[in-house]
Amino acid sequence: MTIRFLNTKDKDFEKNFSALVAVDSSVDPEITKRAEAIVEDVHKRGDEAVLEYTNRFDRMNAKCMEEFRITQEQLKNALETLPEDQKHALTVAAERIRSFHEHELGQSWSITEKDGTKLGIRYTALDSVGLYVPGGKAAYPSSVLMNAMPAHVAGVKNIVMVVPTPGGTPNQLVLAAACLAGVSTCFTIGGAQAVAALAYGTKTIPAVDKIVGPGNAYVAAAKRYVFGTVGIDMIAGPSEILVICDGKTNPDWIAMDLFSQAEHDELAQAILLTPDAEFAEAVKTSIEKQLPDMPRKGIIAASLKNRGAIIVTESVEEACRIADKIAPEHLELSVEDPEKYVDLIHHAGAMFLGAYTCEALGDYCAGPNHVLPTSRTARYSSPLGVWDFQKRTSILKVSKQGAYELGKIADVLARGEFLYAHSGSAMYRVKDLDSKDK
Amino acid sequence: MTIRFLNTKDKDFEKNFSALVAVDSSVDPEITKRAEAIVEDVHKRGDEAVLEYTNRFDRMNAKCMEEFRITQEQLKNALETLPEDQKHALTVAAERIRSFHEHELGQSWSITEKDGTKLGIRYTALDSVGLYVPGGKAAYPSSVLMNAMPAHVAGVKNIVMVVPTPGGTPNQLVLAAACLAGVSTCFTIGGAQAVAALAYGTKTIPAVDKIVGPGNAYVAAAKRYVFGTVGIDMIAGPSEILVICDGKTNPDWIAMDLFSQAEHDELAQAILLTPDAEFAEAVKTSIEKQLPDMPRKGIIAASLKNRGAIIVTESVEEACRIADKIAPEHLELSVEDPEKYVDLIHHAGAMFLGAYTCEALGDYCAGPNHVLPTSRTARYSSPLGVWDFQKRTSILKVSKQGAYELGKIADVLARGEFLYAHSGSAMYRVKDLDSKDK
Repeated sequence: MTIRFLNTKDKDFEKNFSALVAVDSSVDPEITKRAEAIVEDVHKRGDEAVLEYTNRFDRMNAKCMEEFRITQEQLKNALETLPEDQKHALTVAAERIRSFHEHELGQSWSITEKDGTKLGIRYTALDSVGLYVPGGKAAYPSSVLMNAMPAHVAGVKNIVMVVPTPGGTPNQLVLAAACLAGVSTCFTIGGAQAVAALAYGTKTIPAVDKIVGPGNAYVAAAKRYVFGTVGIDMIAGPSEILVICDGKTNPDWIAMDLFSQAEHDELAQAILLTPDAEFAEAVKTSIEKQLPDMPRKGIIAASLKNRGAIIVTESVEEACRIADKIAPEHLELSVEDPEKYVDLIHHAGAMFLGAYTCEALGDYCAGPNHVLPTSRTARYSSPLGVWDFQKRTSILKVSKQGAYELGKIADVLARGEFLYAHSGSAMYRVKDLDSKDK
Repeated sequence: MTIRFLNTKDKDFEKNFSALVAVDSSVDPEITKRAEAIVEDVHKRGDEAVLEYTNRFDRMNAKCMEEFRITQEQLKNALETLPEDQKHALTVAAERIRSFHEHELGQSWSITEKDGTKLGIRYTALDSVGLYVPGGKAAYPSSVLMNAMPAHVAGVKNIVMVVPTPGGTPNQLVLAAACLAGVSTCFTIGGAQAVAALAYGTKTIPAVDKIVGPGNAYVAAAKRYVFGTVGIDMIAGPSEILVICDGKTNPDWIAMDLFSQAEHDELAQAILLTPDAEFAEAVKTSIEKQLPDMPRKGIIAASLKNRGAIIVTESVEEACRIADKIAPEHLELSVEDPEKYVDLIHHAGAMFLGAYTCEALGDYCAGPNHVLPTSRTARYSSPLGVWDFQKRTSILKVSKQGAYELGKIADVLARGEFLYAHSGSAMYRVKDLDSKDK
């Protein structure tokens, strides 16, 4: 089997479909235990522990933490020495991402009431953010842009990036992306030890207020553990794409769109929904035709076999209803007149409309963020954005007259909750104006 | 000792201050274990388990789950039969909270580029939200308004409230608040079993997408456990107030403002910072004078003794710098010309400006939310708001010409990441236009 075939008319469709999209969010308790022990050790011993773990896990031989520091000079140099085509592509992508995210900036506002009472919300940037970037094969410069740029646009002054370099050499594209995305400080450390250093600070690594970015199971466990001491972003599950196609897109394109998700990871999920049974067959044939030529064919084949599916539906509308149950991370609406269907989908991380909008454009350079809610969490969460790096403070200034009116209301409600000091505090302000005859 | 005195000039100030504001976020593993067992049992056995636990823990004797349902009729009736002053106060508070939160509604937007490419963010409300309301003594109608109204304003269709009624009788003010705040469905269940029912759904209790609202240690542990299956709000620590006063506010008012936080809980924290040493003494004297008359004097005395402080500073500016390190949940700037100092404070959940703006007004009826980040989390998090009940979807529609230009960029970056199907997917769109000579 290359990829499983389902039809919504099959009598066991519901059962098979549920099994297909079931999310395994179980966590290995052994990994959690080891990650937490590392975090606590770094919390206690600081730099010394970070140095030891980094030398051990990343096969390094550093004498002191300063050897892990990458200077702004080095970041700039990485950008400037890139091959021209990469430098151009990265710069265009960075500018498009910056420009899109600038629209997301929250603005402070306030209202003034008739009696002079002023109420509002102030937006400010977080002071400092840690950005975890995986090392080795999965070192993705696009991920640096997507995680750091929203923080940069929000106005975060200290963006501290950590990226392990197992064996030694940093990825030049990653450093160049860091340069373009406004990273302030960079260290070649990783794993649970890097997360701990960012959460608690060490002599060399500054403590941050929030840690974002993807990582392996140890990194995820460490992030979960330090949550509360610092903020964290979502802990991502395997990536998913769901393609709805009316049968009018070239089947080779659709097969390749499914591959582009499947090639990430054997656990990644790629699903096609189409009302056109012949088209479904054509995509399957194309998969079989194109797969042998793909450099990552082993991963793609495993992903499609284990978690992929082509589902024949009654209609595009039925496909949309099914998509909405899945709440996919990525949804391609590869149909004519896609706007007709957009509002049928309530839950999706990102929607790609029309045959020309393949997910890969969004992954790299269209502008919107590629860090999206996985594992059905699009029901309640959102793409990473500037909003994740701004915080809000309520600001209240109640006038004398306002305090008189509101104080009487607060007094009644406070007594209803048996909170008499709340009542007393409000009533001092009321009585003050009473005594002055207002 | 009624309340400790510190002075920023003391040579051991830093040490004493750090000890004062240290946050104990440890979790009792025994409670966690028991809560998780209850959640798993409800996940497996549904209504049957909820019924058993509720009868056992809340001393009820219900035969079926329907006995726990509170109808819309009952909510309306609770509001209509309230004493007139309470009905008026609750209605005014609800309307002010609604009106303030309407300003927070996020709006969808999109931009269209020259080549017709359209990019944007769509805001939609969550489908369904669970609201946990503590029962017994800590049944706070104001908390119902503050948690449910932002969801209601966001447009959440199903707001499912759970409130335990140990012994039997529901709090009429709580039900009336639920009526005003747009609660759709209500059940008199609580504890870890109610959280589990909301997260997984049972035959009687509908599954929701996010659970918000305060609760005891079991509720917090259950929320932490189901996070990922559903969204959750922050897990709140003890409440805190920090008052900065220039010495020109009536010391009785300030003492009562400190009481209004201290009366919540023996772990609540109330701190006064003032550059006026005589005023500091006057507040202490007022505390001693007013305390014996307070109905909750035992709790207030314990809170002030264990976690309270009056700190004499060099200046209001120094007080602001210290406040910023604490990142308090509530900050009263009880000074003349408070606007002068607002921007010195980067981290606070809510700021109350001027002697007339006591925290109690914000707790009940000014309009901004009273669910605020505790335990220094104001460094990276925000008051509860409409934004917590809206989610965002990126929407991309790339034109043919856009796909041609962006495809070439994506191709370079994808190959730089060794993701050849990403490249292939983008290049199919590029080649299509090439073959048509654009």
